Amino acid sequence: MSIPMIYPELSADCNIYAGKSITSLVEKYHTPLIVYSMKRINENISRIKEAFDDFPVKIHYAVKSNYNPFIVSKIISNGTGIDAANLNEVKLALLSGARPSDIIATPNNLSGEELAEISELGVTINFDHAGQMELIREKLPETVSFRINPGIGKGEFAGITTAGKNVKFGISKDEAMDAYKTAKKYGARKFGIHMMTGSSVLDPEFFRESSKIFFSIASELSRSLGIEFSFMDIGGGFGVPYSPDALPLDIKKTAGYIMENFNEFHKKGYFESTELILEPGRYIISDAAILLASITSIKNSTHRIIGLDTGMNTLIRIPLYGAHHEIKIAGYNNSVYTVPSDVTGQVCENTDYLAHDILLPDVSVGNVAIILNAGAYVSSMASNYNLLGTPAEVVIDDGMEILTREHSTLDTMLTGFLK
Amino acid sequence: MSIPMIYPELSADCNIYAGKSITSLVEKYHTPLIVYSMKRINENISRIKEAFDDFPVKIHYAVKSNYNPFIVSKIISNGTGIDAANLNEVKLALLSGARPSDIIATPNNLSGEELAEISELGVTINFDHAGQMELIREKLPETVSFRINPGIGKGEFAGITTAGKNVKFGISKDEAMDAYKTAKKYGARKFGIHMMTGSSVLDPEFFRESSKIFFSIASELSRSLGIEFSFMDIGGGFGVPYSPDALPLDIKKTAGYIMENFNEFHKKGYFESTELILEPGRYIISDAAILLASITSIKNSTHRIIGLDTGMNTLIRIPLYGAHHEIKIAGYNNSVYTVPSDVTGQVCENTDYLAHDILLPDVSVGNVAIILNAGAYVSSMASNYNLLGTPAEVVIDDGMEILTREHSTLDTMLTGFLK
Repeated sequence: MSIPMIYPELSADCNIYAGKSITSLVEKYHTPLIVYSMKRINENISRIKEAFDDFPVKIHYAVKSNYNPFIVSKIISNGTGIDAANLNEVKLALLSGARPSDIIATPNNLSGEELAEISELGVTINFDHAGQMELIREKLPETVSFRINPGIGKGEFAGITTAGKNVKFGISKDEAMDAYKTAKKYGARKFGIHMMTGSSVLDPEFFRESSKIFFSIASELSRSLGIEFSFMDIGGGFGVPYSPDALPLDIKKTAGYIMENFNEFHKKGYFESTELILEPGRYIISDAAILLASITSIKNSTHRIIGLDTGMNTLIRIPLYGAHHEIKIAGYNNSVYTVPSDVTGQVCENTDYLAHDILLPDVSVGNVAIILNAGAYVSSMASNYNLLGTPAEVVIDDGMEILTREHSTLDTMLTGFLK
Repeated sequence: MSIPMIYPELSADCNIYAGKSITSLVEKYHTPLIVYSMKRINENISRIKEAFDDFPVKIHYAVKSNYNPFIVSKIISNGTGIDAANLNEVKLALLSGARPSDIIATPNNLSGEELAEISELGVTINFDHAGQMELIREKLPETVSFRINPGIGKGEFAGITTAGKNVKFGISKDEAMDAYKTAKKYGARKFGIHMMTGSSVLDPEFFRESSKIFFSIASELSRSLGIEFSFMDIGGGFGVPYSPDALPLDIKKTAGYIMENFNEFHKKGYFESTELILEPGRYIISDAAILLASITSIKNSTHRIIGLDTGMNTLIRIPLYGAHHEIKIAGYNNSVYTVPSDVTGQVCENTDYLAHDILLPDVSVGNVAIILNAGAYVSSMASNYNLLGTPAEVVIDDGMEILTREHSTLDTMLTGFLK
């Protein structure tokens, strides 16, 4: 039995989202449709800022979680920096109004040419390892930073656990020691340090532990190498609840732990002029959107199969990680979720399930399904598989509806192809 | 220890593909790059035709496996029909030169509006279930066909097993009996029947068994309902070897089994004027392409991690199903594959592995990796995750190189977005 999930900006009867009638939104923009609440995005950012109070922390939004340019520019205009992974993400940030100094790139397996372009744009790079720095030793950014693997990692799924054993990212403390030494030899005078240990973590204790290890590694490197870090980038990982039985991350407590650990080292004379950087992506945008899809088919065979006009083409994270996304039906109260159902999309393979054996109301073709937590890693991971295309995207901002992305058409999907 | 895989059109030293120098192709078109051999595509189609000899069988290429319009039009001009899943795939086929009568649509969870448009274009539909037919009962196609779930299914992975228990597709024999009765009541006078039981199957015995069940169901429906099937569409599922230790499907044997089963019923007076339809997608195109990617990073830590300029954004089928794709390095002989390596891409999450612990030569940054079986479900399932974009696509046809798809740019990736 599922407890009703209280979802930001969504009315209890699932008729209203961000002050707008879901029926009207669907009539106007059709399905599949992602609807974002700018208000919720702003609240999520403010909540982090408030939790850290007047502590010197800077938030860098991870653009990979959602690269809708309208949203990115809104987030930037809010004073938020950008966490980018490659040249295109850097360019998107610049196009969206970021200054190069507001962007930090954390690239993986990029070519020397691409790294050089990023560096020449004036963007700081968290190098993955010394070999990556070597590729542009003639064109190093002003500040040289390395990505540390602190030896522990956590994520809702193995695939999004980005530190610990058997991950492709970062270097150990010993490897970092050599890497910074080499950077000094190459003339670097300013330094940063980065870690990113995982994603979608809801337990403040993990951040207590990982930040402690990270600060301890940073202080040791600082002392041994005689360098001061301009910034320590502790990455992201702040989770959001996807299931009704998950509790939201206690951000106040998390921030408290991080500051406590920082201050402990600060008292010992470390990190005098070090800025702390956070890279939340999911936390900022995941619960600030819903995906609306129409019920196009109801099949009652050995069990009930509900068909929607969107599936794994939009929500690859469900079959890929086994992720859970709560599904509601517009206009139904929680008390009538009584019929066991599978929920599937339009893709011609059996991977295409959005949910197995969940309880839904006694729905009809034409009803609208509301898929929660559609802000992060939904649109940005979507494909044109089966030529089904990607959903339209509407942002609700200050009471206004802004169509920020059109539905794909066959024509837009064939952009770049010889026809 | 891996036995060397003999791959069509690729030289043993991995320097030449489809008669072209891989080095030259990379210099000219850069990486990531998919290179197709039109010759191999044609050979794959011919091999099926020859296996069925002068038996009345028609091949319908499953456009979802690869929708590159240049390739689709070449396949159509060859006299091959099209297996489409929705309106966009039907439109692509028409744009590529197919006549409506060359296309059969097998839709899943489409809306009534979309089904009606497909029907109005003159395209036959394999309805998934009676409820789907109901959505357009006023606009039924001339020939009404249903998709049967024969109760058995097989696939290399559960996600691409499309019949048997717990699949979203098709109906049982009893459900089909009612469905065809209803269709007759609605005035249908011509009928078809369809099954699609799985994908990537290498065992002829499976086709022997599944076709027997299918023909037996079809004959029973035919007799009980007093209808003659214009076509029996036995779907696809013909596999290709992805690993060196897998043996190719014996297509001659497979065709033999299917014809034997067909003839058995034919002798009893069934299927007098019934055309047999096959829907291979993977078999036609999977082994007719390679994906070229540059080595951008070599990291020697606890183990060796090779970084490429493409990853899960292009090859989602590796992390999604646990699929295997053989990886070769251009210019190296099989004897020097001795160094255990992981192979990763540029995506910022740890799902992004193309191979774990495989043997590769002692490579350098700048070497070119060749990923085999890149024709089917690679390009068509690719995403713009991390704004990394999709590879360019070159077709080698009759000695000519045709650039059929440009590399994505930030600009093309932002098509449809408000900027």
